[in-house]
Amino acid sequence: MSTSGPTKKPYHHGGLREALIEAALTILEEDGLAALSLRETARRAGVSAMAPYRHFADKEALLAGIATVGFERFADALREADRATTPAEALQAQGVAYVRFACANPALFRLMFGNAVPKCPGKVEPAGASAYAVLTGRVASLVPEDQAGDWSLVCWSLVHGLTSLVLDGLVDVSAEPAAAMVERMLRLVRVPG
Amino acid sequence: MSTSGPTKKPYHHGGLREALIEAALTILEEDGLAALSLRETARRAGVSAMAPYRHFADKEALLAGIATVGFERFADALREADRATTPAEALQAQGVAYVRFACANPALFRLMFGNAVPKCPGKVEPAGASAYAVLTGRVASLVPEDQAGDWSLVCWSLVHGLTSLVLDGLVDVSAEPAAAMVERMLRLVRVPG
Repeated sequence: MSTSGPTKKPYHHGGLREALIEAALTILEEDGLAALSLRETARRAGVSAMAPYRHFADKEALLAGIATVGFERFADALREADRATTPAEALQAQGVAYVRFACANPALFRLMFGNAVPKCPGKVEPAGASAYAVLTGRVASLVPEDQAGDWSLVCWSLVHGLTSLVLDGLVDVSAEPAAAMVERMLRLVRVPG
Repeated sequence: MSTSGPTKKPYHHGGLREALIEAALTILEEDGLAALSLRETARRAGVSAMAPYRHFADKEALLAGIATVGFERFADALREADRATTPAEALQAQGVAYVRFACANPALFRLMFGNAVPKCPGKVEPAGASAYAVLTGRVASLVPEDQAGDWSLVCWSLVHGLTSLVLDGLVDVSAEPAAAMVERMLRLVRVPG
């Protein structure tokens, strides 16, 4: 299928793919995964119903596309947090960034880490691995080499577990925001370094 | 509605409620949440289509019923594990029991800790609280009183996070079973005691 050709309505700044991804992300967070379709994505992006097929073969490909963008933004947030003053603070800041990203984009977070995208095609796995590398790189700067893998998994499990419990309403965050909670948990565990 | 009265077919040993719960648990694990209905539960239990209404007003009540039984069995498994020789070993054994329960009953585990049962009626919350009390009781025997709440949340998050990552296929357990993994993680974190 051609990548040029006219569209029913003009779409805003940036390419068609970006406009579709943004529209899909909006539908996902506002109306949930069940409401997401190529047709509705086209409608929200203000393009013809056929336009999405230039970039996404089916709904699964669209889901893989937004999960990939999700992981890219997630990795950016972790990298930004990782700039903190000391290595130990950088690790804690990554934990805070993790839970903040999830709370700001709960449906996207569930899509990225859940099993709605069936062992995705394309770039999802590399994007996820790239985000995980921000964590493992920081942990490796803190602990002996032979413990780096285990400590990375401890940190991921701890932060992912707390995030899941918060998103599923099992941990009450009315008195203390989840980000402060995760910071306190990571301080308690004290990754050696 | 009367709780006596004839049923279309006889059901096995035990009461009707127990037979329905067992049938529902089997459907949940074998065919998934979407396949679970009062009608299908009746069919599997070998009772009339109306029989489930003696105990469950609707599907939501049935879900709450099986989530409650799930938490009761889960708490039993944690209590059994908690009998280990030393307090530190008891805590680790609870972590192992947690992940084993989840891996043996993945759909039930997701139902118990997910958000499919909308802030359940009845006994679900007390049953969940009773399971959590097995963990907090053990942690309280290990750490200073003012740290017991935080350490309990650390342990829960860590074990729940690893379990979720394993169930969602994000952590590879082909080389090492999840139960051994969680034991190693908890040893690394070393709850003070």
